Amino acid sequence: MDSLELVKSISIVSPTKIVFLVIDGLGGLASPETGKTELETAKTPNLDKLAAKGVCGLIDPVSPGITPGSGAGHLALFGYDPVSFNIGRGVLEAVGVDFDLKRGDIAARGNFCTVDKAGLVTDRRAGRVSTEKCTELCRLLDGQVIDGVEIFVRPVREHRFAAVFRGDNLSPEVSDSDPQQTGVPPKELIPTHAIARRTANIANQFIAQAKIILAKHSPANMILFRGFSSLPHLPAMSEIYKLKPAAIATYPMYRGLARLVGMEVLETGASIEDEFKTLAQNYNDYDFFFLHIKAADAAGEDGDFDRKVAVIEEVDSLFPELVSLQPDVIVVTGDHSTPAPLKGHSWHPVPVLLYSRWCRADKAKEFSESACLLGGLGRLRATEIMPLAMANALKLTKFGA
Amino acid sequence: MDSLELVKSISIVSPTKIVFLVIDGLGGLASPETGKTELETAKTPNLDKLAAKGVCGLIDPVSPGITPGSGAGHLALFGYDPVSFNIGRGVLEAVGVDFDLKRGDIAARGNFCTVDKAGLVTDRRAGRVSTEKCTELCRLLDGQVIDGVEIFVRPVREHRFAAVFRGDNLSPEVSDSDPQQTGVPPKELIPTHAIARRTANIANQFIAQAKIILAKHSPANMILFRGFSSLPHLPAMSEIYKLKPAAIATYPMYRGLARLVGMEVLETGASIEDEFKTLAQNYNDYDFFFLHIKAADAAGEDGDFDRKVAVIEEVDSLFPELVSLQPDVIVVTGDHSTPAPLKGHSWHPVPVLLYSRWCRADKAKEFSESACLLGGLGRLRATEIMPLAMANALKLTKFGA
Repeated sequence: MDSLELVKSISIVSPTKIVFLVIDGLGGLASPETGKTELETAKTPNLDKLAAKGVCGLIDPVSPGITPGSGAGHLALFGYDPVSFNIGRGVLEAVGVDFDLKRGDIAARGNFCTVDKAGLVTDRRAGRVSTEKCTELCRLLDGQVIDGVEIFVRPVREHRFAAVFRGDNLSPEVSDSDPQQTGVPPKELIPTHAIARRTANIANQFIAQAKIILAKHSPANMILFRGFSSLPHLPAMSEIYKLKPAAIATYPMYRGLARLVGMEVLETGASIEDEFKTLAQNYNDYDFFFLHIKAADAAGEDGDFDRKVAVIEEVDSLFPELVSLQPDVIVVTGDHSTPAPLKGHSWHPVPVLLYSRWCRADKAKEFSESACLLGGLGRLRATEIMPLAMANALKLTKFGA
Repeated sequence: MDSLELVKSISIVSPTKIVFLVIDGLGGLASPETGKTELETAKTPNLDKLAAKGVCGLIDPVSPGITPGSGAGHLALFGYDPVSFNIGRGVLEAVGVDFDLKRGDIAARGNFCTVDKAGLVTDRRAGRVSTEKCTELCRLLDGQVIDGVEIFVRPVREHRFAAVFRGDNLSPEVSDSDPQQTGVPPKELIPTHAIARRTANIANQFIAQAKIILAKHSPANMILFRGFSSLPHLPAMSEIYKLKPAAIATYPMYRGLARLVGMEVLETGASIEDEFKTLAQNYNDYDFFFLHIKAADAAGEDGDFDRKVAVIEEVDSLFPELVSLQPDVIVVTGDHSTPAPLKGHSWHPVPVLLYSRWCRADKAKEFSESACLLGGLGRLRATEIMPLAMANALKLTKFGA
């Protein structure tokens, strides 16, 4: 019996509510000047107040030393082992643009790129063409049928798009065509398993067609593919936890992820304030909320320490609106660390704060990496947070006689 | 190689002795008035003295968030993964009344209940009939033979009894008949796997017979079954650890559990003082002792904070008798938390204290949840305590070349 099955066997419906506030890329590293991380630098009186009443700790999204992608980080928070349930990049892009991916579909992430007359890649992102241009070009490529396989092409953002191959006998075991460098031609797609020969063949034909169609659209005169993948078999949260879960997220990828685990994705405005409002407006209709704040991660990726601090402070200033709803369980954490000094996702464990009436409060008086290190939750796997939240909501019965 | 096999492969016989003092339901939650848990409230100078010389930590009986039953909590302490070795309710009840369960026997937990003329359950516990009445009714049901299967019926306490089916081709894959609510008829037993069709059929016949036999014994005029189960394949502690283990426990269920892992169960008086005396009297004859204190859990279940404090203080006052025997390794812990504020078992990690000459003492100066949080053992799975105790007793050789 794995841990999802274990939790499923003891979960019960109850009127209590759980709110997960996920500040993307929350964990950080100290600024060399101050010795304080982004979270430690930010003034967060409201999060600190809850930390004093709650229990803190540090979570490893996958395991110590492993830097997760966004999909893996979030799946772990929702209790799904991210190694068993690996979501491919293509699937993530497709569900992120609300594409209704079916079982058996093969999705790939596409980039528009620039190639020179010799066919060598000169810009892997086609000068980051506008999303409008991307949308226009996707329309040109969309709807082809090759050897009975239908190909859907959907714009994502700037140079990025999602392609979905729908037909019989397809397989995701296909290599990337993105060479990850300039001055070389795009790679040919190769089946990494014999079963995917047909898929690689059709996708290569599609690329050849695209090259002809895009010839006059420089700088977006070619495409690159990576992350061929198909839908993993994710049991719904309603099935495992007997929850009625809702997601509040502005970025398509996170909305798509939430949908993959069976959450209802709520309409929301683009600002952090809008997201908190959406929570309040829908509070009566669900018993689990995933509230996703993207901007902290984006600031971290840009290496902008101060902007990440500002995002955390903005979340803190809105946090009382969440607390005033009086959820039975509040969890505040991140899907991974994105330290501004590293300018990217990292392996560092992520601060987590859990509050409930039954949480056995610890001595942590503020929400920070250093306070969490001595917190009552200790160091946990991210997948263990969901069972803890369920327990604190009194939604799990006893295991074993 | 799982962890039991690993330990088995390196365990050796040695003259050292280990004593496990298990204070049932030890872990707690803070009183809202004082901010201190039961253990933190109790005056425990003797346990504190050993904590100062030993190493402390917190253990999860199953995994974070999971509340264990008594069987699961104890198996974990003895080093057996409680998810792999899941003991059913029926087995626990049967071994708990000293029934000599054989391999192949199917045990179920029974309740006497009340049904009305229409056959609908009006009281799932038959007004909690007396244990004497239960004993009398069990005698009426005991000893039937249906289709070659012998059926043993033994009283447990009040309305509860254990039924054991002994014969060929039986299987525990049978659903419950207890509907878990009133106003509905008992459910028919259904095989959850085809292999259990015969068992369900025989047990349903037994229930029909019982209804006739009990017709005039209202309020105990019907029975309900749940937790059909058979003996799990538990390797003996003598085999895994090469120990000669003894159990000192007053409650039948814990005596039964100890027997399941191959401990010798010692005769003892009913008081905590008696149990400590039994330890001293038998100290020379075994090299592992499981000393079980039930009253802390019972007080927690009753929500009686002060009584739980008093039990812990009583244990502390007797503790010097244990220490004076100079065991090489002393472990003090619980099988799970039973916080008085929650009035039941809980998922909260359980304080553990380990003392040996070789324990690498930490800075914990008292035995409490908050001191254990910063203790040298950190946060562990309960199954990891037995290997640690064995190591500290110098009963494990090196693993690997």
